[in-house]
Amino acid sequence: MLLSKIKIVLVEPTHPGNIGSVARAMKTMGLSSLVLVNPKKFPHYEASKLAAGAESVLEQAQIYGDLNEAISEATLVVGTSVREREISWPTKNPKDIAETAIEHLTSNLHGSVAILFGRESSGLTNDEMDLCQMQIKIDANPEYSSLNLASAVQILAYELRMCWLKTRSDQMPSPDSKLGTSYHIRQQAATRKQLDGHLEHLQSTIESLNFVKSRPPTQLMRKLTRLYAKAELTVEEIQILRGILSAIDQELSIDN
Amino acid sequence: MLLSKIKIVLVEPTHPGNIGSVARAMKTMGLSSLVLVNPKKFPHYEASKLAAGAESVLEQAQIYGDLNEAISEATLVVGTSVREREISWPTKNPKDIAETAIEHLTSNLHGSVAILFGRESSGLTNDEMDLCQMQIKIDANPEYSSLNLASAVQILAYELRMCWLKTRSDQMPSPDSKLGTSYHIRQQAATRKQLDGHLEHLQSTIESLNFVKSRPPTQLMRKLTRLYAKAELTVEEIQILRGILSAIDQELSIDN
Repeated sequence: MLLSKIKIVLVEPTHPGNIGSVARAMKTMGLSSLVLVNPKKFPHYEASKLAAGAESVLEQAQIYGDLNEAISEATLVVGTSVREREISWPTKNPKDIAETAIEHLTSNLHGSVAILFGRESSGLTNDEMDLCQMQIKIDANPEYSSLNLASAVQILAYELRMCWLKTRSDQMPSPDSKLGTSYHIRQQAATRKQLDGHLEHLQSTIESLNFVKSRPPTQLMRKLTRLYAKAELTVEEIQILRGILSAIDQELSIDN
Repeated sequence: MLLSKIKIVLVEPTHPGNIGSVARAMKTMGLSSLVLVNPKKFPHYEASKLAAGAESVLEQAQIYGDLNEAISEATLVVGTSVREREISWPTKNPKDIAETAIEHLTSNLHGSVAILFGRESSGLTNDEMDLCQMQIKIDANPEYSSLNLASAVQILAYELRMCWLKTRSDQMPSPDSKLGTSYHIRQQAATRKQLDGHLEHLQSTIESLNFVKSRPPTQLMRKLTRLYAKAELTVEEIQILRGILSAIDQELSIDN
């Protein structure tokens, strides 16, 4: 699977709990390849505890003593950065990075992508950024941009999954296309004709009340038309509304 | 500022650490309004510890004993859901919800948005979802969709910020910005309380008809709640609907 070709690389993470939270964040989005470069404490019970069901990601994690070695097989390397740097790398936001990465993997069958996350305290060094083809910048609150390591991974993993799902759905027939049961028909959007039928019924019921001053109640009907158009009614909802109108008509002894 | 009109509402959070992590996730994206409904432990040192610089969000948090009360002033209420449900609410992904919310706040000067997050263990109940106009579904890994509470908030807050930044960057002065007459007040989105008033009136009128088989007509009311929630009613539209109901009541000689 394509998402397994994306490696999340944590460079010298200090807190084992963060490694666990990163594993969880990855797995929720279908990522499975975790790489640890010189983790301070790993394996560690806190990592396992915070992984909460994503232990498989920890178990399969690859551990390296050297970043160069860790990413030697990658065909696209990107780094996350929170600081402004003197040397400016090509910078993209998470969504654009995700698109770049998915496109890269789609067009490179043997490709793999490494996304580097730096130390909790100080991020990646300039030397480490030199290994990257581009940098990711999350456009956070300038007054408080301190994203937790797992939160940064969560956002990237989320954008990667969204982009991957979009790519897949562009290639596959819609799963809805074969549904045809009565339940699903009732949940379908009503046609314009069904909506008009409801509105005519509503108008006729309203006209039998002392409520309206003008006949036909053009202005009122215009507003009601807009109101029900906004609701994007289903077939079932039209049935319910007309059922209520019929019950009112019956009480008022109107024929409809 | 627009982002401060978005309330992150945690319903019965169990772990104080999660409340702190949520505060941090919010602040990194510029959100500041945190609402807690029946938190198990709050204030708590673990919340403060994990907020890590976002204590201001905790200090300003509003605490309620009742969800209805917590969201009574909101003009758009959305809920997060991880489960499949029998009744299907209108469902959007985080990006579309963010667009809807920012658009709603841009066109409703007095609007406010509430985004509900359920309990860590079991999410939101169906009754709580009934208060929502739409649900958010994060398209997570079907084999492991267990997002941490703060991670779910992080993703939503991220999409809200991205959408807000985008809106600001291609923004022109809003034509609504200098309007404040009663006409425009009537065109504003109705509050949850106003919508509830309409729904209670509707239920009382319906109960007086021979239409309903069960009392109270729970299933029917749930569907009608959803229908009118989808319509994102304005104050004026609520007035029109209640006017019609009153006219029906009068014909049927009901006191309301």
